[in-house]
Amino acid sequence: MLADAAAELFLEQGYTKTTVDHIAARAGVSRATFFNYFAAKSDVMWLDLDAAVADLPQHLATSTESSAVRAVEDALLAAARAHDPDRVPWAIAQAEVMDVGAELVASVATRVTAQHQAVASFVAGRTGEHPGSLWPQTVAGSMLGAAAAAFGVWVTDGVGRRPLVEYVGAALTPVVAGLDAR
Amino acid sequence: MLADAAAELFLEQGYTKTTVDHIAARAGVSRATFFNYFAAKSDVMWLDLDAAVADLPQHLATSTESSAVRAVEDALLAAARAHDPDRVPWAIAQAEVMDVGAELVASVATRVTAQHQAVASFVAGRTGEHPGSLWPQTVAGSMLGAAAAAFGVWVTDGVGRRPLVEYVGAALTPVVAGLDAR
Repeated sequence: MLADAAAELFLEQGYTKTTVDHIAARAGVSRATFFNYFAAKSDVMWLDLDAAVADLPQHLATSTESSAVRAVEDALLAAARAHDPDRVPWAIAQAEVMDVGAELVASVATRVTAQHQAVASFVAGRTGEHPGSLWPQTVAGSMLGAAAAAFGVWVTDGVGRRPLVEYVGAALTPVVAGLDAR
Repeated sequence: MLADAAAELFLEQGYTKTTVDHIAARAGVSRATFFNYFAAKSDVMWLDLDAAVADLPQHLATSTESSAVRAVEDALLAAARAHDPDRVPWAIAQAEVMDVGAELVASVATRVTAQHQAVASFVAGRTGEHPGSLWPQTVAGSMLGAAAAAFGVWVTDGVGRRPLVEYVGAALTPVVAGLDAR
């Protein structure tokens, strides 16, 4: 209900002009109630990304792929497929997406790298290394960095965008090839 | 002076237990003065990283390397070499570094990805694409993700750490190989 109110307002008046007070008023709740559910305005915008990314550890845990790098690729592609394609609350005007470009990159990067330790731990478990050592950290950093970048491009591509999984797949392919050849 | 006071306190009582008020008091200034120079406590910790990373656009602009991916690699290695090796304010106890692990990753990632648009614009300039298109964004996301991860490993390796450029180089090598073969 808060998410729907926010999505309506983002569409009507743009993301930057919409305040938490506007969202709360539209949903008929208090500002305090808003903050019971979300820590910040941007959290409402990324509900579906957060949900898709949250499944990553489970995808990894159930992987039967022998290459750890390929297993991470599979898990990221599964997460991209799981993102509801009809819930793109950023049906925001293209111009405004450009406006919030820097915030967008930082915001997506933060959400995707929330899974950094999960990916590093998974890779370390396969190689018998400490999760904090260079190889697991490199795999996590480069692959999540590529996936986050692909997500950002998908968002900014507007209403004519192709499925998210195509963007994530195209971004991961060269990175995975390099990591897997090591 | 604020940086020195902060470094002393981080060493004496750890990063998490040190407050902005402690740092200001040790430096003999007010809390307001602290915030004239730094937006947050963590900014004091990353002074040298911020300085090293700030030179990235200039390294890119003066590159004579024909491969855009290799040019970005060179620029990141130059930034790693530029980071003062004797200014590791995180001569924090190893245990505490583990403690602030998640914050560390997020904090380093934010600082390194501050250069995301600069790297993407440079790559796009070489290929004639829009900086927001998938290839420039992928190069920036994966290479900065790998470099940020390497920086985090370097920090957590403690007093026996090897030069930063070795970590960044080892992390970038497989990623660059994959991207450059595309």
